[in-house]
Amino acid sequence: MLMQTHEARLAALREELKRRDLTGFVVPISDEHMSEYVGDYAQRLAWLTGFGGSAGFAAVTLDHAAIFVDGRYTVQVRDQVDEDLFDYRSVPGDSLGDWLKEVCQDGARIGYDPWLHTWNWVEKLENAVEASGIALVPTDGNPIDAVWSDRPSPSPAEAIVQPDDHAGISSAKKRADVADWLADEGLDAVVVPALDSVAWLLNIRGCDVSHTPVAHSYVIAHGDGSAELFIAPGKVTPEVAQHLGNAVSVRPRDEFEAALGELAGKIVSVDPDFGVAAIAQGLRVGGATFRFRQDPTILAKAIKNEAEIQGHRDAQARDGAAVSRFLRWIEENAPSGEIDELAAATKLEGFRREHGDLRDTSFDTISAAAGHAALPHYKVDEDSNIPIPAGSIYLVDSGGQYPAGTTDITRTVWIDTPGGSDPTTEMKDRFTRVLKGHIQIDRAVFPQGTCGGQIDALARQYLWEAGVDYAHGTGHGVGSFLGVHEGPQRIAKPGGGQAGTAQELHAGMICSNEPGYYKPGEFGIRIENLVLIAQKDIEGAEGTYLGFETLTFVPLDRRLIDKSLLTQTEIEWVDAYHRQVREILAPQLDGEDRAWVERETKPL
Amino acid sequence: MLMQTHEARLAALREELKRRDLTGFVVPISDEHMSEYVGDYAQRLAWLTGFGGSAGFAAVTLDHAAIFVDGRYTVQVRDQVDEDLFDYRSVPGDSLGDWLKEVCQDGARIGYDPWLHTWNWVEKLENAVEASGIALVPTDGNPIDAVWSDRPSPSPAEAIVQPDDHAGISSAKKRADVADWLADEGLDAVVVPALDSVAWLLNIRGCDVSHTPVAHSYVIAHGDGSAELFIAPGKVTPEVAQHLGNAVSVRPRDEFEAALGELAGKIVSVDPDFGVAAIAQGLRVGGATFRFRQDPTILAKAIKNEAEIQGHRDAQARDGAAVSRFLRWIEENAPSGEIDELAAATKLEGFRREHGDLRDTSFDTISAAAGHAALPHYKVDEDSNIPIPAGSIYLVDSGGQYPAGTTDITRTVWIDTPGGSDPTTEMKDRFTRVLKGHIQIDRAVFPQGTCGGQIDALARQYLWEAGVDYAHGTGHGVGSFLGVHEGPQRIAKPGGGQAGTAQELHAGMICSNEPGYYKPGEFGIRIENLVLIAQKDIEGAEGTYLGFETLTFVPLDRRLIDKSLLTQTEIEWVDAYHRQVREILAPQLDGEDRAWVERETKPL
Repeated sequence: MLMQTHEARLAALREELKRRDLTGFVVPISDEHMSEYVGDYAQRLAWLTGFGGSAGFAAVTLDHAAIFVDGRYTVQVRDQVDEDLFDYRSVPGDSLGDWLKEVCQDGARIGYDPWLHTWNWVEKLENAVEASGIALVPTDGNPIDAVWSDRPSPSPAEAIVQPDDHAGISSAKKRADVADWLADEGLDAVVVPALDSVAWLLNIRGCDVSHTPVAHSYVIAHGDGSAELFIAPGKVTPEVAQHLGNAVSVRPRDEFEAALGELAGKIVSVDPDFGVAAIAQGLRVGGATFRFRQDPTILAKAIKNEAEIQGHRDAQARDGAAVSRFLRWIEENAPSGEIDELAAATKLEGFRREHGDLRDTSFDTISAAAGHAALPHYKVDEDSNIPIPAGSIYLVDSGGQYPAGTTDITRTVWIDTPGGSDPTTEMKDRFTRVLKGHIQIDRAVFPQGTCGGQIDALARQYLWEAGVDYAHGTGHGVGSFLGVHEGPQRIAKPGGGQAGTAQELHAGMICSNEPGYYKPGEFGIRIENLVLIAQKDIEGAEGTYLGFETLTFVPLDRRLIDKSLLTQTEIEWVDAYHRQVREILAPQLDGEDRAWVERETKPL
Repeated sequence: MLMQTHEARLAALREELKRRDLTGFVVPISDEHMSEYVGDYAQRLAWLTGFGGSAGFAAVTLDHAAIFVDGRYTVQVRDQVDEDLFDYRSVPGDSLGDWLKEVCQDGARIGYDPWLHTWNWVEKLENAVEASGIALVPTDGNPIDAVWSDRPSPSPAEAIVQPDDHAGISSAKKRADVADWLADEGLDAVVVPALDSVAWLLNIRGCDVSHTPVAHSYVIAHGDGSAELFIAPGKVTPEVAQHLGNAVSVRPRDEFEAALGELAGKIVSVDPDFGVAAIAQGLRVGGATFRFRQDPTILAKAIKNEAEIQGHRDAQARDGAAVSRFLRWIEENAPSGEIDELAAATKLEGFRREHGDLRDTSFDTISAAAGHAALPHYKVDEDSNIPIPAGSIYLVDSGGQYPAGTTDITRTVWIDTPGGSDPTTEMKDRFTRVLKGHIQIDRAVFPQGTCGGQIDALARQYLWEAGVDYAHGTGHGVGSFLGVHEGPQRIAKPGGGQAGTAQELHAGMICSNEPGYYKPGEFGIRIENLVLIAQKDIEGAEGTYLGFETLTFVPLDRRLIDKSLLTQTEIEWVDAYHRQVREILAPQLDGEDRAWVERETKPL
């Protein structure tokens, strides 16, 4: 089994490149839909290098190889990837183009899989290297797949129907809206490659990707409201087929590439962020005129309808009860020092599963004790797992996928010692400043036309006052039984390379509200609720004003609050929030759990 | 004197166009330096149409003519411009390209003066119309000048030296920094067309433009620290010549165009926002390689040095005493109802002039009573002038040009009735919300790397809470005895088409802090101080943190403050501010003026 070592895998890939007359090849973490979460069958970077992070790429030539990761993975890449095989490079400082120019000679032929990169990526890299005589060559099939003998098959799971009482709007109506958009834009058809867009447009879901309930498929939607769904035939149950109806033709997924050629003579759009280069090339070669336009379902999907909003409220209430039971459990059991991060995550998932409606977690639970909590994207595994120390801060960021809605919540709690102990003054100061920012976002009122980049500072101002900050966004969009990270809106610093901060916020959008603070090696704090954007009725208002409505209800740890740092308005906010928590959770809980929630939600 | 009617002027222009074989011509409000304030000699739009606004343009063909203005001037353009001669068009809704396509036929030749438009403007318009067979033709000389018989001559005023004790950094050092920048960028030379950049780089000033103390001139700066100054010879006094020294060659301004040709073979940059098309064309035709780069003096000019900062403090103290004397005067005299807006503006200028150092006002004083105050850009003239009514709000936005610094301040005051009266609850509510926003900006702390677009909402949040807002930015940069509006930074909503909101804020920058509220037809409120960005020393800070330091000291009208809407922190801010006002102004004032300031600055 020589193929088991990364050295052998790299050698096999190089043989395959020679066979194809290529000088090199680029290996991203990506699938044919530019998904955030990528199935095992497409984890080619991990297979080749051993790297387990969720962002990065490698480039391999016959004589050189390098792996490119960002600052989050500087340590991890050195642990997991053999430095004798791969040089370490750091993005955004180091660029692939520069590296290729460094190691390649004039006449080099660098392959890329056109199903794993956007057209923009290809054009940008081409511009960077073509003057050096380096040619980019789209491969026919992925060279790694040719040498990856035990590559997992794509998931065979069946698709499921998302019923109209959850979806709120029928697929026929959504397709009619897309048809109207096509007419307005002077287009004949749109290719929809993003998996959550397909799921939303057709009111179907799937089980092909961890954490995001989507099915591997593509849609081509037409100006008459009809659509073609390209999907493995085994996924389409009779129930799904009946639900899709006559206006949606179901075709095998492997006919998708050929179908692009059937659009000859038509004007067809694809989203530049989700359409891979092969789609643009397929349309072009096939004779269609293609245009880059934002996927027309993205904004419609982000603006939740009444049924979806009610679904979120229901899912949050259910989820909040599970998280509260977990918080009581951790408060009572962790001071022993015998609960570890993995056990806690498993316990939390267990509480969620008891409610029956849980389909999946909405992402890998961040169960982070002490210094681990200072890593905002910490992922616990067997190697990193530690017991949660008594007398420390524990941070848990988790969420569930329910048919009614997707949840995402972070609570930061004090783990007492058996004899009783208090958080430090610094911990309470930082927690309270994070809380003040969280409250400012929750209470914010802003005119229609405001974008997320404008209100981000409201969350940070109290931390800034103390000379500290957090290096992540304040809020992301959340799907309805879809992606826990959903565009197009984002509350974050503008200009940090994160898309969405210039997107106008609309009533009906759901965002996270999650300021934090991280002290490297010591502790981390994050307070996250989901919030709904809703119109505010203000007497004498000049124009339309929006604000947030809280969706997540779970007690905040009062031991970490320094009340003297709160204004009267903020104290009233906490008390009113806790009153709502009690009203929503108490009826779902019994005995000690109920008593715990009642105790935790008393006025400050 | 047929030329006196706009009809005759338009007819003469059309004859001139025919003579030049042109189908049409575009008439902007602009000069050869893309200046904000344009000299009389370049007021071609006003001459042709009668329009007196500060933004807009006209397009004239042999059969059609239209004037394009923005929403601020919808009413004014109808008052001033004859609808039989010019159609009214509204930007940004209506575009010049669309209008030309509407009125022109294939083969049309539309002239433009390449000394009055940027290269980007030309390219964008060309892209919009070329498919319709409309050609854009740069004119040799401006066709309007050929028929404008009594066109004013450009100002003959002499340039003056800005001494190093005000400038803080010698011109030689500034030119050496530009030379370093040229080396870093791989450039041989930079063309500097912006008048304030020329003035800053050479430490000279002038009197050629109202409100901005600059001299009509261009600079070409070279990699060896030398520079060529193109300026009318009569402006260069022996003192200026001696100050400029040997490394600056003084050449006649009319040699500038030819000098572009002398750069053949060199790599030369020009700023795309300030370099007119003729400069880019001159470089290209002359054989230079040209690059668009931001003018290297812009950021350096915005970050004030210690001497400039001290100069601003001195100028503000002096200016504040004059404004305070005016506010006492208006408080005592306006309740009679016999003071009009123009008289008030004249009186204010008089107080400023008494101090001797005033060189000019820094813009036309906005002296706005009652409903006029609701127009943020109101300009009082003989036609609009009204008596300031007793029992109303009066807004005065004004500034001075002093050799030490440029000032800009707005105060909003209650004009009492002879019998005594109070502002309405609404007025006090709005004034107090504006004040709260002003205080939030003044107190803001933010990390290095923050841009103005991120903190703008801090100023608006209390107004938003009440469902209202203001339709202008919160803060602009201010020069040192230069432009009262100076880039590159701006505190404003991002994405509103106003440049600068993505510019990182740096210690040493000076900004205005001027939130407001405007109730159409009734009243207007604005509170404006200048603030300096300074590093904040915060114990335990992680990184560099910045904040503002107030520069403007003049009492706020306490009759308009609803103290019950202020937090304790805000009350303390007002009291501390007023204490500083008293400390700075009292020593400069005598008798009743001093007593007035002492009364007005008592704790709330």
